[in-house]
Amino acid sequence: MTITTCVFDAYGTLFDVSAAARQAAEQPGREKLAACWQALAADWRNKQLQYTWLRAITGEHTSFWNVTMDGLDWAMDKHGLDDDPELREILLALYWELAAYREVPAMLARLKAAGKACAILSNGSPDMLEGAVEFSGIGTYLDAVLSVEDVGIFKPARQVYDMVGTRFGCAPDEVLFVSSNGWDAAGAAGYGFTTVWANRAGDPVDRLPHRPHHILSDLTTLPEIAT
Amino acid sequence: MTITTCVFDAYGTLFDVSAAARQAAEQPGREKLAACWQALAADWRNKQLQYTWLRAITGEHTSFWNVTMDGLDWAMDKHGLDDDPELREILLALYWELAAYREVPAMLARLKAAGKACAILSNGSPDMLEGAVEFSGIGTYLDAVLSVEDVGIFKPARQVYDMVGTRFGCAPDEVLFVSSNGWDAAGAAGYGFTTVWANRAGDPVDRLPHRPHHILSDLTTLPEIAT
Repeated sequence: MTITTCVFDAYGTLFDVSAAARQAAEQPGREKLAACWQALAADWRNKQLQYTWLRAITGEHTSFWNVTMDGLDWAMDKHGLDDDPELREILLALYWELAAYREVPAMLARLKAAGKACAILSNGSPDMLEGAVEFSGIGTYLDAVLSVEDVGIFKPARQVYDMVGTRFGCAPDEVLFVSSNGWDAAGAAGYGFTTVWANRAGDPVDRLPHRPHHILSDLTTLPEIAT
Repeated sequence: MTITTCVFDAYGTLFDVSAAARQAAEQPGREKLAACWQALAADWRNKQLQYTWLRAITGEHTSFWNVTMDGLDWAMDKHGLDDDPELREILLALYWELAAYREVPAMLARLKAAGKACAILSNGSPDMLEGAVEFSGIGTYLDAVLSVEDVGIFKPARQVYDMVGTRFGCAPDEVLFVSSNGWDAAGAAGYGFTTVWANRAGDPVDRLPHRPHHILSDLTTLPEIAT
């Protein structure tokens, strides 16, 4: 089956989610953060994800912005930074201005030149996604920015992946789904999409019921899979 | 409302789950493991839990023994130990002979002396739980060992917490639920149990919709809450 539609996860896949803590650590007077920003960013991300999964199981959905704040609060507490409300505001503000990974604009341009529909499918709140898309300047390549807010549950619930067919009228096997999150690629593979895991960190493949069809170290060569 | 029934999570709460990797690291000729066993144990546990949550969301249940093996395979791969099938077997075998934390037998004895029903409610497979209960010698204090296998979904799905009322005929507010996993204590609090988080690691409280009612550093003083 020919791929007609390329769908991308947002955070960690198109946008560099560790950028927020790294950039804040580079500011003057942030020595305490500079010493721990990598662990802080990892804990922030881990708790953010855990909270999405736990809320999906118990049916207690909230916006991704809320779990982003909740994850940061846990991580700042863990690293003894919870007495610094100014730092909290700086880190949260940076989350609205995430950079795209460097290969992303040219990769999306190639897909559009090949006639593919391109979209984001993300846990992110519509306003968070709008901010990141605008800041990174990739909006011109995107036919849709789909947020789980429209279905009220986080990935990898099937209702989220259903949004692609609803929006584009395509069958699952016409969709190439791309995520840097192994569990998201696995969930999408189980749904029936052809999947690419952008394994930026060089991690082992997740031992879940479904495996990604392709594994790349970044997105540079993605158009060769899609076309 | 009087507490009639004390229900315990198993792994990390009554049984020391990091013991398997630590004991294996102490064996002669295991220098490579000795250098990384703490990170290996943490990654093993993290992936084991992630896989339970992801399978609960997608409805792809399997036994806890399977996700325990899956998590270990990921962690051994991550740490460059995936070329050592003998080590894999040693680590998995130790999982069937986990020690109870030192304060556990006397704590359970006090609860029984006070007339409380005591039970385990665990993600673990019945055979894994049977092995750990037998090895640790705490079976004499337990009125029931409840496994999620009977409902076919992992915590914190409500169906799991339902098992307590089904078994003991008690109302949620008669139950004191105890877990070292903050997310499990939070899920049980949302269900309606009175909850204790055994915060053995000194971690920040999870920013989830429900908070534990009590936080202890270990289980020594638990009977004072229950009685």
